[in-house]
Amino acid sequence: MMAPPAGEQVFENPSEDPVLMTGGNYIREGRDSSKSTCLVLSPQNTQEVGALAKILKLFEENEVNLLHIESRPSKRQHGHYEFMFECDPTTGNLDVATNKLRESCEYLQVILRNHNDNKKLGESVPWFPRRIRDLDRFANQILSYGAELDADHPGFTDPEYRKRRKYFADIAYNYRHGEPLPHVDYTKEEIETWGVVFKELSRLYPTHACKEHNHVFPLLIQNCAYREDNIPQLQDVSNFLKDCTGFTLRPVAGLLSSRDFLAGLAFRVFHSTQYIRHPSRPLYTPEPDVCHELLGHAPLFADPAFAQFSQEIGLASLGAPDDYIEKLATLFWFTVEYGMCNQDGELKAYGAGLLSSYGELQYCLEGKAELRPFEPEKTCLQKYPITSYQPIYYVANSFEEAKAQMIKYAQTVPRPFGVRYNPYTQSVEILDSKEQIEDLMTCSNQDMQVLIDALKKLATESN
Amino acid sequence: MMAPPAGEQVFENPSEDPVLMTGGNYIREGRDSSKSTCLVLSPQNTQEVGALAKILKLFEENEVNLLHIESRPSKRQHGHYEFMFECDPTTGNLDVATNKLRESCEYLQVILRNHNDNKKLGESVPWFPRRIRDLDRFANQILSYGAELDADHPGFTDPEYRKRRKYFADIAYNYRHGEPLPHVDYTKEEIETWGVVFKELSRLYPTHACKEHNHVFPLLIQNCAYREDNIPQLQDVSNFLKDCTGFTLRPVAGLLSSRDFLAGLAFRVFHSTQYIRHPSRPLYTPEPDVCHELLGHAPLFADPAFAQFSQEIGLASLGAPDDYIEKLATLFWFTVEYGMCNQDGELKAYGAGLLSSYGELQYCLEGKAELRPFEPEKTCLQKYPITSYQPIYYVANSFEEAKAQMIKYAQTVPRPFGVRYNPYTQSVEILDSKEQIEDLMTCSNQDMQVLIDALKKLATESN
Amino acid sequence: MMAPPAGEQVFENPSEDPVLMTGGNYIREGRDSSKSTCLVLSPQNTQEVGALAKILKLFEENEVNLLHIESRPSKRQHGHYEFMFECDPTTGNLDVATNKLRESCEYLQVILRNHNDNKKLGESVPWFPRRIRDLDRFANQILSYGAELDADHPGFTDPEYRKRRKYFADIAYNYRHGEPLPHVDYTKEEIETWGVVFKELSRLYPTHACKEHNHVFPLLIQNCAYREDNIPQLQDVSNFLKDCTGFTLRPVAGLLSSRDFLAGLAFRVFHSTQYIRHPSRPLYTPEPDVCHELLGHAPLFADPAFAQFSQEIGLASLGAPDDYIEKLATLFWFTVEYGMCNQDGELKAYGAGLLSSYGELQYCLEGKAELRPFEPEKTCLQKYPITSYQPIYYVANSFEEAKAQMIKYAQTVPRPFGVRYNPYTQSVEILDSKEQIEDLMTCSNQDMQVLIDALKKLATESN
Amino acid sequence: MMAPPAGEQVFENPSEDPVLMTGGNYIREGRDSSKSTCLVLSPQNTQEVGALAKILKLFEENEVNLLHIESRPSKRQHGHYEFMFECDPTTGNLDVATNKLRESCEYLQVILRNHNDNKKLGESVPWFPRRIRDLDRFANQILSYGAELDADHPGFTDPEYRKRRKYFADIAYNYRHGEPLPHVDYTKEEIETWGVVFKELSRLYPTHACKEHNHVFPLLIQNCAYREDNIPQLQDVSNFLKDCTGFTLRPVAGLLSSRDFLAGLAFRVFHSTQYIRHPSRPLYTPEPDVCHELLGHAPLFADPAFAQFSQEIGLASLGAPDDYIEKLATLFWFTVEYGMCNQDGELKAYGAGLLSSYGELQYCLEGKAELRPFEPEKTCLQKYPITSYQPIYYVANSFEEAKAQMIKYAQTVPRPFGVRYNPYTQSVEILDSKEQIEDLMTCSNQDMQVLIDALKKLATESN
Repeated sequence: MMAPPAGEQVFENPSEDPVLMTGGNYIREGRDSSKSTCLVLSPQNTQEVGALAKILKLFEENEVNLLHIESRPSKRQHGHYEFMFECDPTTGNLDVATNKLRESCEYLQVILRNHNDNKKLGESVPWFPRRIRDLDRFANQILSYGAELDADHPGFTDPEYRKRRKYFADIAYNYRHGEPLPHVDYTKEEIETWGVVFKELSRLYPTHACKEHNHVFPLLIQNCAYREDNIPQLQDVSNFLKDCTGFTLRPVAGLLSSRDFLAGLAFRVFHSTQYIRHPSRPLYTPEPDVCHELLGHAPLFADPAFAQFSQEIGLASLGAPDDYIEKLATLFWFTVEYGMCNQDGELKAYGAGLLSSYGELQYCLEGKAELRPFEPEKTCLQKYPITSYQPIYYVANSFEEAKAQMIKYAQTVPRPFGVRYNPYTQSVEILDSKEQIEDLMTCSNQDMQVLIDALKKLATESN
Repeated sequence: MMAPPAGEQVFENPSEDPVLMTGGNYIREGRDSSKSTCLVLSPQNTQEVGALAKILKLFEENEVNLLHIESRPSKRQHGHYEFMFECDPTTGNLDVATNKLRESCEYLQVILRNHNDNKKLGESVPWFPRRIRDLDRFANQILSYGAELDADHPGFTDPEYRKRRKYFADIAYNYRHGEPLPHVDYTKEEIETWGVVFKELSRLYPTHACKEHNHVFPLLIQNCAYREDNIPQLQDVSNFLKDCTGFTLRPVAGLLSSRDFLAGLAFRVFHSTQYIRHPSRPLYTPEPDVCHELLGHAPLFADPAFAQFSQEIGLASLGAPDDYIEKLATLFWFTVEYGMCNQDGELKAYGAGLLSSYGELQYCLEGKAELRPFEPEKTCLQKYPITSYQPIYYVANSFEEAKAQMIKYAQTVPRPFGVRYNPYTQSVEILDSKEQIEDLMTCSNQDMQVLIDALKKLATESN
Repeated sequence: MMAPPAGEQVFENPSEDPVLMTGGNYIREGRDSSKSTCLVLSPQNTQEVGALAKILKLFEENEVNLLHIESRPSKRQHGHYEFMFECDPTTGNLDVATNKLRESCEYLQVILRNHNDNKKLGESVPWFPRRIRDLDRFANQILSYGAELDADHPGFTDPEYRKRRKYFADIAYNYRHGEPLPHVDYTKEEIETWGVVFKELSRLYPTHACKEHNHVFPLLIQNCAYREDNIPQLQDVSNFLKDCTGFTLRPVAGLLSSRDFLAGLAFRVFHSTQYIRHPSRPLYTPEPDVCHELLGHAPLFADPAFAQFSQEIGLASLGAPDDYIEKLATLFWFTVEYGMCNQDGELKAYGAGLLSSYGELQYCLEGKAELRPFEPEKTCLQKYPITSYQPIYYVANSFEEAKAQMIKYAQTVPRPFGVRYNPYTQSVEILDSKEQIEDLMTCSNQDMQVLIDALKKLATESN
Repeated sequence: MMAPPAGEQVFENPSEDPVLMTGGNYIREGRDSSKSTCLVLSPQNTQEVGALAKILKLFEENEVNLLHIESRPSKRQHGHYEFMFECDPTTGNLDVATNKLRESCEYLQVILRNHNDNKKLGESVPWFPRRIRDLDRFANQILSYGAELDADHPGFTDPEYRKRRKYFADIAYNYRHGEPLPHVDYTKEEIETWGVVFKELSRLYPTHACKEHNHVFPLLIQNCAYREDNIPQLQDVSNFLKDCTGFTLRPVAGLLSSRDFLAGLAFRVFHSTQYIRHPSRPLYTPEPDVCHELLGHAPLFADPAFAQFSQEIGLASLGAPDDYIEKLATLFWFTVEYGMCNQDGELKAYGAGLLSSYGELQYCLEGKAELRPFEPEKTCLQKYPITSYQPIYYVANSFEEAKAQMIKYAQTVPRPFGVRYNPYTQSVEILDSKEQIEDLMTCSNQDMQVLIDALKKLATESN
């Protein structure tokens, strides 16, 4: 659930508690980790025992409060260490401390959550989550909280509905990575709303949806209790997707900024709503709801090529400048949300915005809108409406090809490093040292070795 | 914690409940999933709607009880489905049903937990876990339960110690994948025992341990509360390892068979004890304990090359014939448990059996034992004692080289497919279709593309 | 020098001698190897000593004349043999013999020079050169012989010029692979013509030509005697190109069919004219001449990415259906002949047709023609005039990108095998066996190993 | 034909003419290019027109005679140039000029033929051929000229034989790269000598030779006129090998130093004798002769894995220190000359020294000698006799494995760059710039793309 391209106004929950990471020894105190400044550094003289103590003293002298500290083996250089200091930037002289540190470190990167303040700190790049658990920080960074409805929202005057929306928002707000996704008992009325949507769309899918959607849909019925009389549980769908491609769902309390939302995709995490549209208009919703997520998005995330395509958008967004975030959000819009494709000579829909809209799913195939080939470097510049049917659709040849195009496009994002997701550690690796690239090339070569061996076995068996 | 090479006698917990997998719709009933027979199959005519119904009818006609059913998109062939049926082999005519299925399936693989029964079912291979949650099945397959001590065990006559051991065994027995590792409050006496071991070994490490161990050890002190007066919690260590290499610890109630223990490594899961040795002899233990795991094993699993080396042993073991399991257990013994290496012209210890033994860690460097170069195809045949110091040690040049050697050795394991761990889905993929290998090669090529791009950025920056 | 897209009428030199390949033992007789049918086959039972004798007997029984025989180790399968029989299809019952052979061979491929006769022979594909020396067969397959000028040719009524053209055509006609390219003493008048062209174009290059052309041009002056008062010798230019990219020039007596001309590129061989335009109009020529080749084509073939791009077109053409040959010839036209590119924000010419035309080189940058992005799948369909300036130019982003696009486009050419050029054996390998692909993947992996090692050394030196 | 490990005494032909390379404009004069010093350099400011002129002036001022100059596009960095200056080191102040050049060049490498003089010139490495035509320089660097026989040579007192040897030596001495290998009319007596050897060895091969030798041998009979009554022509054998693996033969006038001989292998060029042993003892020869080359070496060079193995030794030798040259020559000795291998459980010979010796071919399989596994890092240190049967043989598992071992061993040769053979340009590329490695990785990735595509086609066809 990504915010539409509008003025971003960050919602702040007044009762928010400090969200501290657990497990470290050096956690001190802190008010708001979402505003923290993160320093990742490697001391010059790694052998020196007192390296960490010295750095801590420097922070102390400059009265910088540390919220969290971690030390890890460096992936950038064998035998070196990497420290991560999460600092409260409202305390002390962080600039002074940073500049002093820079002198004694062979590597220092400043990562700011509020990247508009970047310029004062030299080479810093916009903050982005490095580990899957960092996504917890988005929880209180939503642009509008779930229960706050616009005046023209069908549920605006329905106190029961608003209460229900608050319930769902609170679930998401309090969710932390690693916890099971809360089971929700949907009301009879909610299930009926789902039933209408499910029934109508199911009839269209065989002729209107892309083959990947139609391939997975029966599996969701079999494995995740997709039924007219049942709203599937996020946890069951997330488990299914995890088995298929490693994608998982995580509840979200409201709209995320594009930057945050896309960053989730880099981890194969999709921020999903859990509430349902207002029962008064079952085939309409002004915002994403559980029908949109489960009928539109979920089936596609079970497809390996599509999953990787989505992740590539996410990876491209990490640390990208603001204008590129907008371009990537546009690419997301014209693919994952409103994408169409050619399959066996026929036009089909694969975007979730289409697959969850009874009206637009029919409209998009009626030849009324303009069709253009998906070409990231052009598509990324196209403006689009968010409250009406799309006047232009972009058509992909295949997810494999779209993925290759995205990988290529990602290389044009101006940032001084490459990024790679390490699915073992569920963390993003910044590629900016030769040793690291050598190591990964060796691994890639060994993977290939394994594939060649598997191919040899195949040959022996079947040739 | 792997059983030593002895007669295997499977312990059966009389009160065990059926461990069913959750999330599916078709779970029926079952007594003991650990004895189940698993059928993985793809129907010939995938488009046909009634494929699943037909198969279910076949099982019904032959009175085969199904414990669990899953349907997934096939990774072997695009657009096909893969069904997994877990059957209770003690019911009905499974052989008849299997043979009939074979006729109508383009792919059918029978996986048996009790692989000695394999021969009646043609091409079947020994059962192995396909997904990380399948490791839950090992919980009640331990060769000796934690509280049962041998007569010569230092704690044999200590009822308090035996009670404590039962406590730890029960934790492990009831643990399920995905749950947090239970926090343990160690007694003052237990902490004192740890303290003795920690203190003595810490003095030896700088001169006796390999550089990888010495590199990580200070980080465990900083991040996981390794201290003389504190026994670290498995969860903290597991979290740290997850960040470094994706390895995780999971508690184990007793000795696992070699096959099961090695299979865990394929998932980067290390089965770890949580209890501590008897306080009467703090520098001796006849079996692995938490000192062995946390001081010996844990530091090395934080090293990327070592982690991958260990995983390679695990992957090689999946579906391997019994004699190869023995060879791989031997390789594990002479590397992960008792390995030595040359570093900068000096001999160092990296095996956990050495790094957790105050006596043998000194002995192994004293030149009394024979040293041989690590060569998997030779080392795998060497017999070894389990109750005395080793008469022979095998010396590796580097973990990188040992890893490359293991990858090559793995290709000699006779099995009709390659295997690959998919860290996104946390599952093992059987590589036996061309389409699958093509897909993976394409992915590998795209990974390389990303690395080349990262290399280019490096060039621009630093050249 | 490729024939324009017109009706193809094969010129036949009445005095042509049979061109037999040397070195084999079994050469018998033959009239015209250019019309021969080629059978490449592997006997089923390779161990059998009498395999070859049996096959020869079969040909004898069916009265098929063999022009040439070769036996080689098979690259398709280790331990097998591959025989190549070049047959005179005008003799005996080749069809009968072929069908009988098919029964006893595990592999048999019929390659016909006249691919319109293909249909009677089942799976046959159009003939294409497999080894660089096979290019000798094109010598007498030219569409118009050098001395035959059209009525509107500036030299049509000049007997001296026609005599000179005959001289050049004879050189090319008699040239055989491996021989030095004949040195030509150009007349004073010819050198003056060259001088005019050289001088005028040299002035335009700095502002109009792509940077790759401008990078190489001074080297041709330094190394190959490019001067206003000297026409460079093909041999010197060919030697220079060989050093840079492995491209070589070979003289051609007239226009080749598109199929033949493109096939040469697969071997990095460029068929080049050696005569010069008529002195009456030094800045005009209705056909390629030595100015076009040496000023337009030669500099670009020294660029590695461009060389590989050109070769990719050639490789794509081997065994392609006629309609794809036309598409590839069109791609050649809009790139190698009339290509433009964007460089540092400016439009530049890289096509030889532009770089050798004083008029069109200026015209193409004047904004009068339409510019479109180079997209092989679209560009390949564009019609074009051959006697006037181009109304449309296609603009490439870079040779690297164009190369990647061509590799991708080549995969759409419908043929039942992949092809690869082996620069060691200077032969084209048909990729249609798993063993072969495995071998090449292993080699590719080892190449990568060497690169990783080189990268490591770099790291040690400069990081 | 490599010199045995003895004192090297370079033979100098008194009548030698300067061997100048052709094609350049700047060739001046020179006495002996084999003693020349080669400077390869890239000027800092490549755009500057006068770069070359400036450098030439510097040489002039320091009175250094230039024997040859070439300018080429740099492969190290796009858009840069590379100059190669071959200087006569006996003239002027080369040291002064070199030091001045170093200041204004971004890259400068000094390559000395006489590498014992290296130390005065800083980072210089031993001279090695960079292009296949550089092998011409070995012609007058032989350690003993063909006609000079030792006193115990069977032909020592036979003036006719010595005259014949002189004839063969002169052929080789005057041979230049690119020329056809001279056809030799062998005398009746010579053919009889060959006949005896051919007949006796042919009987042993089926049981004693490795399968690769036995696979190729019938092809040499069919294609190269290997017969009891005919000595094959080097040209025919060279052509056959070129088709199979790209190996070629080139005649050699006497013994080459190990460094020179091994360097030839880097280009897949084998220096071969053309004369035959003395007729008095047909089954004995104290030195390589045409029987040794054509019966022992030639068949194996037709095997792709063996050819690449041999080339790897050659590539490893380029620019290696003297002690590594000795190690590599030892590896050559124990593989290409005296190697044995295990095939299907049986011991077989593949070394040319065995396959061309009627006595030792039997001896080596009789179990009298010690057998050790081929392990480059150990084998390279083994001393060996050159006048008696070998007391130790090294046994390889397969050429594929031996090749992988050699690639790995090559990475231990201490030199500050990687090397790669470019078969298109027939030149050795020094890998010491990131841009170059990136380019090659991209190419390697594209090669892989082509293989994946070929694999896909295979799948479609046969699965």
